[in-house]
Amino acid sequence: MTTTAPSRPLTTPQAAIPAAYTELCGLRWQASTVGSIGSLLSWDQETYMPHAAAAHRADQSSMMARLAHESATSPRIGELLGSCEGELAKLNGQVDPVVHADLREMRRDYDLATRLPADLVAELARTGSQAQEVWKDARQKSDFAMFRPWLEKMLDLSRRKARCLGYPAGGELYDALLDKYEPGATANMIESAFTPLRARLSALVKDLSASGRRIDTRVTKVTIDARLQHELGQFVLRAMGFDFAAGRLDTTTHPFCSGMAPGDTRLTTRYRDEAFTDALYGSMHEAGHGLYEQGLPKLASIASAPAYGRPLAESISLGIHESQSRMWENFVGRSREFWDWLWPIAMKMTSTSSAASPLSAYSTDDIFRAVNTATPSFIRVEADEATYNLHVMLRFELERAMLAGEVAVKDLPGEWNRRVKEYLGLDVPDDRRGCLQDVHWAFGLIGYFPTYTLGNLYAAQFWETINTQIPDLKQRMAGGDFAALKKWLNENIHIHGRRYRAAELCENLTGKPLSADPLMRHLEGKLRPLYR
Amino acid sequence: MTTTAPSRPLTTPQAAIPAAYTELCGLRWQASTVGSIGSLLSWDQETYMPHAAAAHRADQSSMMARLAHESATSPRIGELLGSCEGELAKLNGQVDPVVHADLREMRRDYDLATRLPADLVAELARTGSQAQEVWKDARQKSDFAMFRPWLEKMLDLSRRKARCLGYPAGGELYDALLDKYEPGATANMIESAFTPLRARLSALVKDLSASGRRIDTRVTKVTIDARLQHELGQFVLRAMGFDFAAGRLDTTTHPFCSGMAPGDTRLTTRYRDEAFTDALYGSMHEAGHGLYEQGLPKLASIASAPAYGRPLAESISLGIHESQSRMWENFVGRSREFWDWLWPIAMKMTSTSSAASPLSAYSTDDIFRAVNTATPSFIRVEADEATYNLHVMLRFELERAMLAGEVAVKDLPGEWNRRVKEYLGLDVPDDRRGCLQDVHWAFGLIGYFPTYTLGNLYAAQFWETINTQIPDLKQRMAGGDFAALKKWLNENIHIHGRRYRAAELCENLTGKPLSADPLMRHLEGKLRPLYR
Repeated sequence: MTTTAPSRPLTTPQAAIPAAYTELCGLRWQASTVGSIGSLLSWDQETYMPHAAAAHRADQSSMMARLAHESATSPRIGELLGSCEGELAKLNGQVDPVVHADLREMRRDYDLATRLPADLVAELARTGSQAQEVWKDARQKSDFAMFRPWLEKMLDLSRRKARCLGYPAGGELYDALLDKYEPGATANMIESAFTPLRARLSALVKDLSASGRRIDTRVTKVTIDARLQHELGQFVLRAMGFDFAAGRLDTTTHPFCSGMAPGDTRLTTRYRDEAFTDALYGSMHEAGHGLYEQGLPKLASIASAPAYGRPLAESISLGIHESQSRMWENFVGRSREFWDWLWPIAMKMTSTSSAASPLSAYSTDDIFRAVNTATPSFIRVEADEATYNLHVMLRFELERAMLAGEVAVKDLPGEWNRRVKEYLGLDVPDDRRGCLQDVHWAFGLIGYFPTYTLGNLYAAQFWETINTQIPDLKQRMAGGDFAALKKWLNENIHIHGRRYRAAELCENLTGKPLSADPLMRHLEGKLRPLYR
Repeated sequence: MTTTAPSRPLTTPQAAIPAAYTELCGLRWQASTVGSIGSLLSWDQETYMPHAAAAHRADQSSMMARLAHESATSPRIGELLGSCEGELAKLNGQVDPVVHADLREMRRDYDLATRLPADLVAELARTGSQAQEVWKDARQKSDFAMFRPWLEKMLDLSRRKARCLGYPAGGELYDALLDKYEPGATANMIESAFTPLRARLSALVKDLSASGRRIDTRVTKVTIDARLQHELGQFVLRAMGFDFAAGRLDTTTHPFCSGMAPGDTRLTTRYRDEAFTDALYGSMHEAGHGLYEQGLPKLASIASAPAYGRPLAESISLGIHESQSRMWENFVGRSREFWDWLWPIAMKMTSTSSAASPLSAYSTDDIFRAVNTATPSFIRVEADEATYNLHVMLRFELERAMLAGEVAVKDLPGEWNRRVKEYLGLDVPDDRRGCLQDVHWAFGLIGYFPTYTLGNLYAAQFWETINTQIPDLKQRMAGGDFAALKKWLNENIHIHGRRYRAAELCENLTGKPLSADPLMRHLEGKLRPLYR
């Protein structure tokens, strides 16, 4: 086992800090503050904004996106970066590694940002805001034709964006978009990782299905009032260590986490009376993201300047972000120990003075089995652990093909449904449960989906390491004690911000490059006994 | 009776539109859009923002305030205004009166805005945002010492602001602040109006008290669940014509209305289980403001340019704004006819399959009497119609004296309590129910309070006219039909934006200058019979 990175690497001798660095930090702070206002506009649009405000919200979002872009591409940043880099070169490796990493990431951001024209950024924000409203309607009505022109628009804009960003020789347009979310990753690398994983996952799902065992999932379908579900969710999030004085949990069509500002991390989930585990896992998933956001040193001062706005206080990549959400959702939330703890509590919280809880007809065994099925289904965010990655893979293939013009937007429903049949064995009944289910493409988030599966792989690999370093973690979980886990994540991942790239962090922490083995070990080890 | 202004004065021949006008409208649109983002920041801070986000919210608000100020004071606006005014002069009165009024008000705004330095504007926004957080705590703890330094800071900043804005010879600092909210009004004018009104109101309250009659108000103290109160409130607001597709109703410590953007008007109220009429009248009051905001032509295009951002789509003054809220709260909501309609409905909405409504022990007569008492109390926003204006007057006197340095901030609680004793005959038990009850001063809203009483005076005077022009209004109200009233307000007040000044509008609509007689007639006519 390799050593982990030092847990407080954040003090640095003044002498080694380049003079222009402080001013640079101030400009980054300003750009991030503009961005944080844009994030509030988005959060509000998803949660509480009245429908008639949509047109003006697009104008507001576009205005803030333009301003954020102007701040991020200010020529003064270029000058200051050049000056810092000159000083670093003279210091001959004697520079504080934290400051060094901060400047490395600032350079990356500046170069990427200056490649995008301001008009394109504003247009992406405005069109995304409008497309999102159309998507909401289209999804509800299951009307793909309504959404189609907007998806075409977003793809055109995304191609323009990818051409501006550029990609290494031998690559493709898709790489430019993917690299924004997962620095260093390429479509070919993803394909190479996904192809064998798909084979192993398909084999597992097929085996489990062939076992003839059918798991009784009635416990997850009992009726529980949304208000009680909300209370249960908040209770679990508090136990995880999510700080509600610096965050919230609201309701939206599509669950998300917005780490919008220092001291302000907002989660959302959705409630259906007869699907309480969907809401619970949605909340735990987003709270995993939320703990990462709350764990970043946004409120700290590092090397004599406020950390907020600097790479040091930002997340590494979407893959690492997703490793945090998946760990809490699946490795904690779908464990036997978690339910040993929560089941009696949930039963109490959902009973009244006059009536027993609707859960009381079921045992801890029942709930543990019911949340660990391997059953093909239509909706990605409600999919089980085993089939989830197959949902991601089909989205990766389709967005890559649409961006390259190999699949026309008009053919999307057909291509989607064909793949769902092939990978999951299901016939998609309507586009609401098919290609209209996710908001991502409406926002122009292309190249984003594969990071979900990367997150599962990272989570599994980190989890094996954590269980070696906290040997009694399972016992702690059975007692509802998640503090040691949260502390480990805080000290080994969150506190570093973008100091390490994802691959480097993975090697530092686990001693090995990313591999599919831990995830397959986890799934095989948990699911095969349940289906025996 | 004088004629009312034409109801659709908004088309104008292209020929009469100065060339620079369209560009000017575009710059105003931009400045207002920046302002609308600032409004969302404020609304969110009051409703859903986590506590730990307060420090950064102050930075965000300050940033947007600075940007709004920059937009409003752009030298290009000055150039364009000058050019338009030059063209107007040449047209020799042949210009469209709508465009003429629009330019008149743009000139006023520009001159006022350019008198304020950007740093002061940013500091007012930042300090106001911080002071508001302190006020929340201080109010809850009833700890004036905690709030005192912040009030001193806001007063200092307000004095600086007033000195920059300036005021006519023979006036005082207070006039500069008051004129922002009520164009053309001065402290002396307010004092002259308030002194006799106070005498007549005091005499009425004293008479009613001397009658020996005590009105039974138990009906307003029954316990009704906040969720049911919220449903009842929404039902009444829908009947009033408030458009929930373009607005919301949320919960805050202090009720307010934010007409934050085109298609986005947000109201708040507060619920206590044992005071359902407080929440209901809070909601109706704010919805009165909200109908004005929704009635302004923000989504229209006027004289070939978007109306949003132009004076044409803005409210006249706070006094006129308050006339709208008070009319719905008091002239509608406290009428016999309103309760004839609502009482059976409220009873049904608050009963369940297993239990009768807690209201069922009371009659329409009981509720009508209970909401029409004249009983001195501590909290302004919960005061009855007769005593309300006495609350306003003491605030006007105190803020005027504090601004002039005649009353020191440290003496505020004592001075407050002395006046409450003198005007209302009550001993203030703590500062939470005394000088800490309102948020206004924390925000730096000095010169704002007198507009509440102006609003009551305008409402009464408009109400007499409306009842002449809609002779069957009372019968309509008894049937829950408020459409004619809303239409009258839309067509005679809202649609004009800032075309007329408040005094001019009042004369246009009622044929007379503003007078205290209609308000006194209304109160005497309603209250004396109830206390007989």
